[in-house]
Amino acid sequence: MDKFLARELFAIVYDKKNSGFNNIEVYLEGWIKTNRNNGSIGFIEFNDGTTFKNIQIVYDKTKVKDFDKLSKLATGEAISVIGNFVLTPNAKQPFEIAAKEIKSIGTCPEDYPLQKKRHSFEFLRDIAHIRPRANTFNAVNRVRNALAMAIHTYFQDNGFMWVHTPIITSNDAEGAGETFNVTVGKDASKFFGKPVCLTVSGQLHVETFAMAFRNVYTFGPTFRAEESHTTTHASEFWMVEPEIAFADLNDDMKVIEASLKFCIDYVIKHCPDEMNFFNTMIDKTLLTRLNHVLNSEFKRLDYTDAIKLLEKAVADGYKFENKNIKWGMDLQTEHERYITEHVVKGPVFIINYPKDIKAFYMRLNDDGKTVAACDLLVPQIGELVGGSQREERYDILKEKMDKLGNTKGLEWYLDLRKYGGCPHAGFGIGFDRLLMYVTGMANIRDMQPFPRTPGSIKY
Amino acid sequence: MDKFLARELFAIVYDKKNSGFNNIEVYLEGWIKTNRNNGSIGFIEFNDGTTFKNIQIVYDKTKVKDFDKLSKLATGEAISVIGNFVLTPNAKQPFEIAAKEIKSIGTCPEDYPLQKKRHSFEFLRDIAHIRPRANTFNAVNRVRNALAMAIHTYFQDNGFMWVHTPIITSNDAEGAGETFNVTVGKDASKFFGKPVCLTVSGQLHVETFAMAFRNVYTFGPTFRAEESHTTTHASEFWMVEPEIAFADLNDDMKVIEASLKFCIDYVIKHCPDEMNFFNTMIDKTLLTRLNHVLNSEFKRLDYTDAIKLLEKAVADGYKFENKNIKWGMDLQTEHERYITEHVVKGPVFIINYPKDIKAFYMRLNDDGKTVAACDLLVPQIGELVGGSQREERYDILKEKMDKLGNTKGLEWYLDLRKYGGCPHAGFGIGFDRLLMYVTGMANIRDMQPFPRTPGSIKY
Repeated sequence: MDKFLARELFAIVYDKKNSGFNNIEVYLEGWIKTNRNNGSIGFIEFNDGTTFKNIQIVYDKTKVKDFDKLSKLATGEAISVIGNFVLTPNAKQPFEIAAKEIKSIGTCPEDYPLQKKRHSFEFLRDIAHIRPRANTFNAVNRVRNALAMAIHTYFQDNGFMWVHTPIITSNDAEGAGETFNVTVGKDASKFFGKPVCLTVSGQLHVETFAMAFRNVYTFGPTFRAEESHTTTHASEFWMVEPEIAFADLNDDMKVIEASLKFCIDYVIKHCPDEMNFFNTMIDKTLLTRLNHVLNSEFKRLDYTDAIKLLEKAVADGYKFENKNIKWGMDLQTEHERYITEHVVKGPVFIINYPKDIKAFYMRLNDDGKTVAACDLLVPQIGELVGGSQREERYDILKEKMDKLGNTKGLEWYLDLRKYGGCPHAGFGIGFDRLLMYVTGMANIRDMQPFPRTPGSIKY
Repeated sequence: MDKFLARELFAIVYDKKNSGFNNIEVYLEGWIKTNRNNGSIGFIEFNDGTTFKNIQIVYDKTKVKDFDKLSKLATGEAISVIGNFVLTPNAKQPFEIAAKEIKSIGTCPEDYPLQKKRHSFEFLRDIAHIRPRANTFNAVNRVRNALAMAIHTYFQDNGFMWVHTPIITSNDAEGAGETFNVTVGKDASKFFGKPVCLTVSGQLHVETFAMAFRNVYTFGPTFRAEESHTTTHASEFWMVEPEIAFADLNDDMKVIEASLKFCIDYVIKHCPDEMNFFNTMIDKTLLTRLNHVLNSEFKRLDYTDAIKLLEKAVADGYKFENKNIKWGMDLQTEHERYITEHVVKGPVFIINYPKDIKAFYMRLNDDGKTVAACDLLVPQIGELVGGSQREERYDILKEKMDKLGNTKGLEWYLDLRKYGGCPHAGFGIGFDRLLMYVTGMANIRDMQPFPRTPGSIKY
């Protein structure tokens, strides 16, 4: 008798190679989701972790030895099952397992927190070690895995090299954003000879590799020590940061659009059951919205024109919380959403932001006032991706850095402009936020295996 | 005229679809490795970062306007090239570019540290931001990328889910190993409400996911704050930690052997030029050794039998630095290498180690003295992979943890045995050490984009 995984049984059915498999004997191991019976026949909803869908195990009082004992198997219990794989073309599920023998591998007492009822996400966050077994988090983690592999697949297939930029660093990419300090013992600078912190971005380091390998990307954890208690901020999160040599802002936006569409399409195709679950249980507009993105050409709008549109909206009586629209301001989410939802009605790049509200490494435009930056705005979220062409001109960059006072310690970054420098561009995607967007889930704490936010670290 | 990448041109040649491409005009961008001329014809070794091999650009005084200027283009300079793609079936390189126009994109002054001569690895470590452009590090980073994708490919194809276990943690998996503290401001426990550190292993956290998804793996950075100044220790390194539910030590070893062989085979197939480089320039036994591993069945040897073999070796006069062989000791690298190189002459799992020298979570064997652990030893390295079956019996694990004093804060880990627990097993591979093994390189500082070791953090 062969050992099977649930996903292999489903594959047999969906590959339509099933005729030869009907009534073969199989051996399965997994966990009980529910167990009920009508006195003569019992039904176990069974999941072995390899599929989102459950398998129905049927045990018949006339065919198993210990019906009464089996009827007491608990939700959450680990079991092994020997039974016949039976196609059920007229039933809701495509097949079932007619059990011959069911054994308990690991019991599950009555205080198991995941009893059969709806639990709030808040409650589940408090049992993060049990949470992956709940339906929603089964789906979240499957899509997280698929989305991560979509990232790798897109960039590898397009010749980008994955670079493991360092987590512990003495440089701070943005100059903004609070950082976590890393210490050993009491003296902060003892171990590495200088104070170090957790990286907020791998961009500066990965630019080094773009100057050797042309197309590269980071994909790893980054950190912000901000006391933010919002649904979209975490202290630890994964970022994707591609960097492209011999590229300008236009090239950058082409890669952003293509990679994003690829990832959305990949997840819809690789996780149909999970995406239907989210579309049914979490956000009924989800698939419509994602398909709209897939079929939209991403528009482009100059920051200066965006400001004019927002000024007009205020004049027309549109109710922003911040109505004080003026050139030079940072757009808030309400402004971004107005533009992408009400004006463009789809994804839009805002480009050429005022230099003073953007990072030092962004390339100064000829107007002397704006930089070659782009933020991708999408309906319901606002900003999803931020990118820019990098300042490749040594003198202009050095002057900026000297003014900012961050030249010291970043001489190596300037060297990239001195020795065979070239126009280059890149962008950053917050992976956990992208996962929120793709699943329709509303809280970043529900995206991460063990979320880290201020004041909370149980695991 | 089409914009091409070097890898596309090589693919044209190797796919043998080349006849239609001969003499087509192409546009390339990249960097000069060397530039020489004989007065009438110039030759540029050109690399655009997309291949390990260089492309030869030929510029002929009679065909380009500015021969003298071109002859002064410097090593390291970024250029664009318009020229004809010409097949050269009788030459060393399969094609060359007959230049029509070459433009400088970014100059490179004479103090460029990568002039054409052999540089020591020590020197290159000190210019980590330029180092990726050196031949050896071009190869190292290409193989690093391929090996990372080999890991993902093997585990994804075998139904394992990638889990992003947290970096910041309040738990310390091994109980051993110094950790880095993470702080904000002066009060260590202010931000998260308790002291936290950088993870030394994702294993305990990922076991949680094995209990929901059966087959899972971590692949991410881990940290050790040890003052080790060896060639194999880094403060920050990537680990792969698969975890398998419904599995024992035998299942574990099967996955270790299969995944390792897959990864070696993948790298040899995906990076033939790079691997030939390492085999020629770094370690002339490399490919022989790796192919031997591919064709070996990994042997298994009980720790107790290994001790007997070592005792016999000492009795026979074999010169170990530590000759004090006795049951219960931790094997040192010299002992491990003796067994794998002189006794087994190939990869070997040492199994069933004394419980007192192994981690608390390893499953106690029936003898009450040993645990179901395995270390994979390979020639020239010693230990490459460590794994174990996990203790799934609640009472035995709790007693161990109570004795060790680490129960508090790890109640959630015990819960995995209380609620539907099952036999499970897993292992850990130090990714950077695996890369050393696969490339034949001798220092972990040369494996990482920006290595972190005690006393050293320039970038």
